[in-house]
Amino acid sequence: MAVYTDISEDDLREFLTAYDAGELTSYKGIAEGVENSNFLLHTTRAPLILTLYEKRVDRNDLPFFIGLMHHLADRGLSCPLPLPRHDGQLLGELSGRPAALVSFLEGMWLRKPAARHCREVGRALAEMHVAGEGFALTRRNALSLDGWQQLWEKSEGRADEVEAGLQGEIRAELEFLAANWPKNLPAGIIHADLFPDNVFFLGDRLSGLIDFYFACNDLLAYDVSICLNAWCFEKDGAYNVTKGVALLEGYESVRPLDEAEAAALPILSRGSALRFFLTRLYDWLTTPEGALVVKKDPLEYLRKLRFHRQIASVAEYGRAG
Amino acid sequence: MAVYTDISEDDLREFLTAYDAGELTSYKGIAEGVENSNFLLHTTRAPLILTLYEKRVDRNDLPFFIGLMHHLADRGLSCPLPLPRHDGQLLGELSGRPAALVSFLEGMWLRKPAARHCREVGRALAEMHVAGEGFALTRRNALSLDGWQQLWEKSEGRADEVEAGLQGEIRAELEFLAANWPKNLPAGIIHADLFPDNVFFLGDRLSGLIDFYFACNDLLAYDVSICLNAWCFEKDGAYNVTKGVALLEGYESVRPLDEAEAAALPILSRGSALRFFLTRLYDWLTTPEGALVVKKDPLEYLRKLRFHRQIASVAEYGRAG
Repeated sequence: MAVYTDISEDDLREFLTAYDAGELTSYKGIAEGVENSNFLLHTTRAPLILTLYEKRVDRNDLPFFIGLMHHLADRGLSCPLPLPRHDGQLLGELSGRPAALVSFLEGMWLRKPAARHCREVGRALAEMHVAGEGFALTRRNALSLDGWQQLWEKSEGRADEVEAGLQGEIRAELEFLAANWPKNLPAGIIHADLFPDNVFFLGDRLSGLIDFYFACNDLLAYDVSICLNAWCFEKDGAYNVTKGVALLEGYESVRPLDEAEAAALPILSRGSALRFFLTRLYDWLTTPEGALVVKKDPLEYLRKLRFHRQIASVAEYGRAG
Repeated sequence: MAVYTDISEDDLREFLTAYDAGELTSYKGIAEGVENSNFLLHTTRAPLILTLYEKRVDRNDLPFFIGLMHHLADRGLSCPLPLPRHDGQLLGELSGRPAALVSFLEGMWLRKPAARHCREVGRALAEMHVAGEGFALTRRNALSLDGWQQLWEKSEGRADEVEAGLQGEIRAELEFLAANWPKNLPAGIIHADLFPDNVFFLGDRLSGLIDFYFACNDLLAYDVSICLNAWCFEKDGAYNVTKGVALLEGYESVRPLDEAEAAALPILSRGSALRFFLTRLYDWLTTPEGALVVKKDPLEYLRKLRFHRQIASVAEYGRAG
């Protein structure tokens, strides 16, 4: 929730001359995205989103992210469409940062999604997996087994500050996942961060997916497990099986999971719960007190991890085994 | 630059049923305003700004602020127009906070205003002073002599941390201003915070004034002195007399200053420089290190104050004496 870089009207007008974007009538920094600076532009044509990529994003990844949005939108997925410059490039530079203009998606993210919304999210995730086929670029998932291990090494020494005994528990979990992580499941482009704030709805209709800045190549069913974690737990920590049924049915109405994928959901969900636990733990331990950033509670994901660890069968997620 | 309160789509839809605002299609928290939470709404009709008033704003002042915008817009000034609810009220409640919907003004604030823009600002300020006549409510200026003294008492003990000798200099300044502050100049509604980020332009045309949350009743020429401080100094601290000429000519093309007002400009400018120095000094000394708030340098206004102290005649501001 931040705007890190301000831009001057003169610089923005100059930047826009490279695009066929209409006349600029206003621009506002918006409180969305934690990695980049985002502005909502009004023009004499359609509204646009301008993103300035801050240093936390690797510039070498930008062609993958921007190209992916173009590829997915081209295949009919509702996601931000990058506007090309007159020279055909999708990336420009503004205030010393790489910058892109994308179409503005109307819609709102749901602070309290219901089961019917989980069904739509499942469907859209599967549509994204299908639409991602044939995308020419690849990006490895920096936040899979190796990445978790690296993150853990930075936090391990202070983990017991968060909860006594945590150090041993997480070390054992990492060992288990490293030894048992599935290898031969269907893979492709995954979103890897499809939380409620990245899915827009107009009423009950899903109007688009945004924020592809964690997208990468990985197991498709791992993306499903991220959504189970992100959409199907209540605020009190309880797994809502009605939402699980809806999300999985929505997904499988477009792309049925094969039996190996279904059987792997518990371990994949342990992995994705651990992934968000680890990034939150790291931020929790390193964000200075008093900073105006909302620190997300890592324990929320520890509780989810423990839930998945005691799952005996995928039927408990709401899927007929 | 902050959104303090998030709002859920359900709560917002419920809030909007009290208005004739069209169907909501999106809302984004915007990084503007330091006192309140602001959202840019798109609807099936015109875009709107939704403001939630946080606790730094006294609720008793809200009818003055909202009523003033309505009064000014009604008199033809380009400023946000509060949208009335079906019951005729201009204020509602959302997420436990007083909230108002106002029209969205297209336009951009200028990071690098030129003299031609200062002329437009002067003209718009005078138009606001004229349009403010007849407004039924009054609000005393909480940041005039008494308020400065109170602010100073909170910072005085640490002032020498900022610059050696500051404590004696500011104490003497406050005494001088208390003894010599003009009393019988024309008074009325003033904006009291007409900095560049509160003035929108479309190209070189001024498209509107925003942020009336410091507006109050005070000397009209004091508002002119605030604009001299806010618009007519360069980044290096130098007073730009070309901008001063333009701002004063623009103002006087609508509302000529009388001779007593013109003669008072140096002391009024000392006062307004001190006012911004004192609020910045207080924030500087009290904002925790590491907070993601931009601390504005109080010394910028100390330098302006010293400039005004050595002014011998208003001709130095660019006005024929």
